[in-house]
Amino acid sequence: MAGNSFGSVFKLTSFGESHGKAVGMVLDGCPAGITLCEADIQVELNRRRPGQSTITTQRKEADEVQILSGVFEGLSLGTPIAVLIHNHDQESKDYSHLKDAFRPSHADFTYQEKYGHRDYRGGGRASARETVARVAAGAIAKKYLSLSTSIKTRAYVSSIAHVDLETKYTELNLDLIESNLVRCPDPEKAAAMIALIEESKAKGDSLGGIISCVIENCPIGLGEPVFDKLEAQLAKAMLSIPAVKGFSIGSGFEGTKLKGSEHNDAFEIKEGRVHTKTNHSGGIQGGISNGMDIYFEVAFKPTATIMQKQESIDSAWQEISLEAKGRHDPCVLPRAIPIVEAMANLVLADNLLLSKLSKL
Amino acid sequence: MAGNSFGSVFKLTSFGESHGKAVGMVLDGCPAGITLCEADIQVELNRRRPGQSTITTQRKEADEVQILSGVFEGLSLGTPIAVLIHNHDQESKDYSHLKDAFRPSHADFTYQEKYGHRDYRGGGRASARETVARVAAGAIAKKYLSLSTSIKTRAYVSSIAHVDLETKYTELNLDLIESNLVRCPDPEKAAAMIALIEESKAKGDSLGGIISCVIENCPIGLGEPVFDKLEAQLAKAMLSIPAVKGFSIGSGFEGTKLKGSEHNDAFEIKEGRVHTKTNHSGGIQGGISNGMDIYFEVAFKPTATIMQKQESIDSAWQEISLEAKGRHDPCVLPRAIPIVEAMANLVLADNLLLSKLSKL
Amino acid sequence: MAGNSFGSVFKLTSFGESHGKAVGMVLDGCPAGITLCEADIQVELNRRRPGQSTITTQRKEADEVQILSGVFEGLSLGTPIAVLIHNHDQESKDYSHLKDAFRPSHADFTYQEKYGHRDYRGGGRASARETVARVAAGAIAKKYLSLSTSIKTRAYVSSIAHVDLETKYTELNLDLIESNLVRCPDPEKAAAMIALIEESKAKGDSLGGIISCVIENCPIGLGEPVFDKLEAQLAKAMLSIPAVKGFSIGSGFEGTKLKGSEHNDAFEIKEGRVHTKTNHSGGIQGGISNGMDIYFEVAFKPTATIMQKQESIDSAWQEISLEAKGRHDPCVLPRAIPIVEAMANLVLADNLLLSKLSKL
Amino acid sequence: MAGNSFGSVFKLTSFGESHGKAVGMVLDGCPAGITLCEADIQVELNRRRPGQSTITTQRKEADEVQILSGVFEGLSLGTPIAVLIHNHDQESKDYSHLKDAFRPSHADFTYQEKYGHRDYRGGGRASARETVARVAAGAIAKKYLSLSTSIKTRAYVSSIAHVDLETKYTELNLDLIESNLVRCPDPEKAAAMIALIEESKAKGDSLGGIISCVIENCPIGLGEPVFDKLEAQLAKAMLSIPAVKGFSIGSGFEGTKLKGSEHNDAFEIKEGRVHTKTNHSGGIQGGISNGMDIYFEVAFKPTATIMQKQESIDSAWQEISLEAKGRHDPCVLPRAIPIVEAMANLVLADNLLLSKLSKL
Repeated sequence: MAGNSFGSVFKLTSFGESHGKAVGMVLDGCPAGITLCEADIQVELNRRRPGQSTITTQRKEADEVQILSGVFEGLSLGTPIAVLIHNHDQESKDYSHLKDAFRPSHADFTYQEKYGHRDYRGGGRASARETVARVAAGAIAKKYLSLSTSIKTRAYVSSIAHVDLETKYTELNLDLIESNLVRCPDPEKAAAMIALIEESKAKGDSLGGIISCVIENCPIGLGEPVFDKLEAQLAKAMLSIPAVKGFSIGSGFEGTKLKGSEHNDAFEIKEGRVHTKTNHSGGIQGGISNGMDIYFEVAFKPTATIMQKQESIDSAWQEISLEAKGRHDPCVLPRAIPIVEAMANLVLADNLLLSKLSKL
Repeated sequence: MAGNSFGSVFKLTSFGESHGKAVGMVLDGCPAGITLCEADIQVELNRRRPGQSTITTQRKEADEVQILSGVFEGLSLGTPIAVLIHNHDQESKDYSHLKDAFRPSHADFTYQEKYGHRDYRGGGRASARETVARVAAGAIAKKYLSLSTSIKTRAYVSSIAHVDLETKYTELNLDLIESNLVRCPDPEKAAAMIALIEESKAKGDSLGGIISCVIENCPIGLGEPVFDKLEAQLAKAMLSIPAVKGFSIGSGFEGTKLKGSEHNDAFEIKEGRVHTKTNHSGGIQGGISNGMDIYFEVAFKPTATIMQKQESIDSAWQEISLEAKGRHDPCVLPRAIPIVEAMANLVLADNLLLSKLSKL
Repeated sequence: MAGNSFGSVFKLTSFGESHGKAVGMVLDGCPAGITLCEADIQVELNRRRPGQSTITTQRKEADEVQILSGVFEGLSLGTPIAVLIHNHDQESKDYSHLKDAFRPSHADFTYQEKYGHRDYRGGGRASARETVARVAAGAIAKKYLSLSTSIKTRAYVSSIAHVDLETKYTELNLDLIESNLVRCPDPEKAAAMIALIEESKAKGDSLGGIISCVIENCPIGLGEPVFDKLEAQLAKAMLSIPAVKGFSIGSGFEGTKLKGSEHNDAFEIKEGRVHTKTNHSGGIQGGISNGMDIYFEVAFKPTATIMQKQESIDSAWQEISLEAKGRHDPCVLPRAIPIVEAMANLVLADNLLLSKLSKL
Repeated sequence: MAGNSFGSVFKLTSFGESHGKAVGMVLDGCPAGITLCEADIQVELNRRRPGQSTITTQRKEADEVQILSGVFEGLSLGTPIAVLIHNHDQESKDYSHLKDAFRPSHADFTYQEKYGHRDYRGGGRASARETVARVAAGAIAKKYLSLSTSIKTRAYVSSIAHVDLETKYTELNLDLIESNLVRCPDPEKAAAMIALIEESKAKGDSLGGIISCVIENCPIGLGEPVFDKLEAQLAKAMLSIPAVKGFSIGSGFEGTKLKGSEHNDAFEIKEGRVHTKTNHSGGIQGGISNGMDIYFEVAFKPTATIMQKQESIDSAWQEISLEAKGRHDPCVLPRAIPIVEAMANLVLADNLLLSKLSKL
């Protein structure tokens, strides 16, 4: 109820403030018998880790993962898997200037109002540091999916501000996603995006953009209509990521301009299975995966923390002037790629389990 | 788990196939002491009812609501409120031509695969008729909100295909929404939209578009981070509506093109309360309402049922030719307005209750 | 949250007041493909029906079941199964004498305090009439179990006041349970119990007793430790039945007097499967079924409604004198047999589904 | 779903195997603003700690608690409270003799069957060591209750094998509970119980017994009928504790022998509030607390681990001979007192929060 759990039968409960002792999660409902070790998780955390390149925050956190329970002799036990990532920087900085400040477009004001008490250090629970727990859980989901299906979930940056990839995913080489710092599979566009981010960073400003995600080889039958349609779960998953402002599946907002006769995906039999000639549906019909690629887009606003002086107010409702300290991401999208994938894989793992229950 | 419940503490469970005996829902967790009668629900059902105008389906359903439990002497009891809407047309038509057909961009194929058995009459559970239960529950949510807050939730059609309202909601007179058949508050644009829908209908084709929704006077503090952020819940609510392909909150996809220094919403004190000069956040920060207007948009694809011949396949994987029979909506948006509002009000009611639990 | 749902993946939501229009339930999560019709439910409702014998209430209710959704052409659809039982007597009686009265050991006072508003007619939601919805859902659970397992759930009356069956279930012929009015498999004891109930009824008094329940052929592996141990779920299920004051599993309270060396159930291999020589565990070890018979007992207090004058208070805290009107059960146990079985079968069905998720 | 969470809005998720790195829990839904520190939890863990007296296991575990999140500057944040207790002994012993053994009346066999893979060291997840997480969560519940109500929850040992306290709790001085090793408020009976345990221990055998629990000053209105009646939740809570075989509330099993005219609790006005002359109901009517003392009893079987040779089987279904090693509790009841209280307080805290939602 209180919002820190995700999933129904493959369910993670996340915890931790950005400058508390640790961030972590407990995953309940992971089936027994999955080969799993800390390295399986660490590899995904490394993709999210701060300080990994010139266009991310220069903050250094090792983000070393520790599995506390639920795994024995290299196999999951079917009992809760608790995972911990210690916060090493926690006491090294002075955050007293933020104690009473409400930073623009941050959660300071709303947390103060809702809870009456908040951890003001680095955003506390509202910090994007919280997403490290999601990536850890997502890594376990990915492992489970890899043992039960051929699902392949890949996200990439498709726009940074006005620099837009334009090319459809079907015409891209997704193996190039990790070949550059911004995680865009088109090397030329990637270079333009990186240049734009560096320019913005130099000005102390920030940028947003769009992440696209493709899920290949999804089995038919995932999703629980009517309220837990697969796209509805994905939408919730994505909008729960800090800084996300929009979600679209398949034809999305652009599809609203097509006529029904253009938009409908005609069925055909291809390579011995049911197929659609087009895929405006984005791989989901009636809330249930139809076996085609699942394709969705996620809009991220520009990072709220900027290295420029801003006017704001404090908790006594007095006007103040704020200037960010520390090292921040001028653009969150490159590091958000593993987060989008993690959330998608968590939705898939949960629904794969649920799909075992639909028929006698 | 199986997807037919919505909400956490103000929780509805919906049931019913489009051509079964009835569609309905049970609402558990509605507080005791709310004045409530069937007319409170009927008025919203009437806004969704088929046959209400020339641009909706000409099908006639009275959609008469019946409260079976949970209300006594005009007040809610705090016990489950069961609501029933009988399907009067249920046996009058012949659906045998759809028994084995998989209609393009419908849920026939995926339901067949997931469940192995389906009610093929009029889409069965996947029919938009299911949303009548949502509107009924939303009417109760609206009543509860009206007794506890000044919340005002209003949705309107902001585009049909390429006919786009363009004007921001702050410059529109939302009192005009119900003044025309398409439920667009700009009378000129509304006329253009209606003409476009009629033209499309004449060709046996269908149209999509965008619905915008504004929530005024939302109390500060609704939303349960980190996974149940208010925008995440709204996104799920909207993507669970049939035909929805996208959701955006505040600046949405367009906001990805702004710089942080442009996008941040500066705080100020105005009329004795905390206010933001701009509202790119769309009334939600850190997943919690901040007291500003909540603004979001919902993309609807063109109706899948069209009055044109289409090629498809059947359950034996044979090619077939399909032509729709009956009376269908050439564009679902006008009738989707009360559905969007209902889902929004359900999210708000649930979070209003939950917000009582956040502080000692 | 509000207490009207039971189960996790095989989940019923119950509704209805005793003198409202109807009592019913929605079952979500029942797998598709189960053969099901109204007669499957009616047969169980008939075992619970009032007026069935001289030792139950003489009230007449047909309790005719109606399936509204979720079943098509004789098979479950995997969509919610809504079931309705109309209350036919609802307006025939005068309950105004109870409007402000708090009947001793009833729920009048606590409902008034908790909800501030209550349906005083016949106990409203707190009436045992609510259990008709449980029996309907339990009938579907039983059907599902019969198609997937050889589970056989049988309850019987093992004591009425001081008349105690004494004999262990293993030495009884459980096929005799339905052979007499009180549902006790020992004909002589049954006769004594019936005589005792009739004597009590003649005096306008009421009796309690104990129901025993045996579940044969339960598959190994049901139950979800640590909090949802199978016995914990059964305990909750039983204590949720009106008038229940106690639950014991296996050796129960008597087992507390044994030494560990006497109480431990030694394993052996018998007829090609793992077996225990004794069954003090009652078929559950570590919260998980072990394949032996599950055995538990449920204590019912004497019916609170008696045909004698009682002193009490009213809602204005004034002393009043009360005398019951109408026709009531002098002892609820005979009619509670199908309720105990229904709740047990609901727990089993839910856990059978859940058990599909425990291993890769 | 997978059984490691307890509560609905005040919800703990527990994790940890007895010989893994740590045992712990995450508590989500604890309101913000509660004064809380590690000492509040440690004091309760110390009451449960092994090695505390001559009649408990001589195993030494410091059970030092660490709060990882959710508390800042001495106050709860409203965010998840993660609590860790490291297992210090984890690698010191040799458990290889248990690798393939199924110990009688333990969970070895059922865990193996359900999950296909288990941590055999000291019972793994099925070990009573898991209850340390419950006691930690219960301590936070107790703190919350102490700040919002005058609730006083006290459990005590009322029988060990045949040594039975007999005296009703109303005639006992509950302040004496902690005055002796066995936690029985009657010093003479306590001495007899201790002697019996020591005698049993000397023989390598074990004992069971009954724990009684009294909750004073419970507010009226806690409990969520019909399925989540307060007594149903308490029953589940208690039956989820390892070794528990029975639960009774108020008059319990004995009350089945009374007539309705004897059992009914007459209302009266006393000291300005509604009161009942007797309390056979045990403080709960219709599933909702009525303001009287809540009284219940919990039956514990004798400890399954005994220091005597036992015949059993192994995972290859071969007969083996087993002898326990290590240091075990000859009787779990003295150390179970804080566990029973913790579970009761968790139920109360959850229902106190829920009760805020019942009325407009």
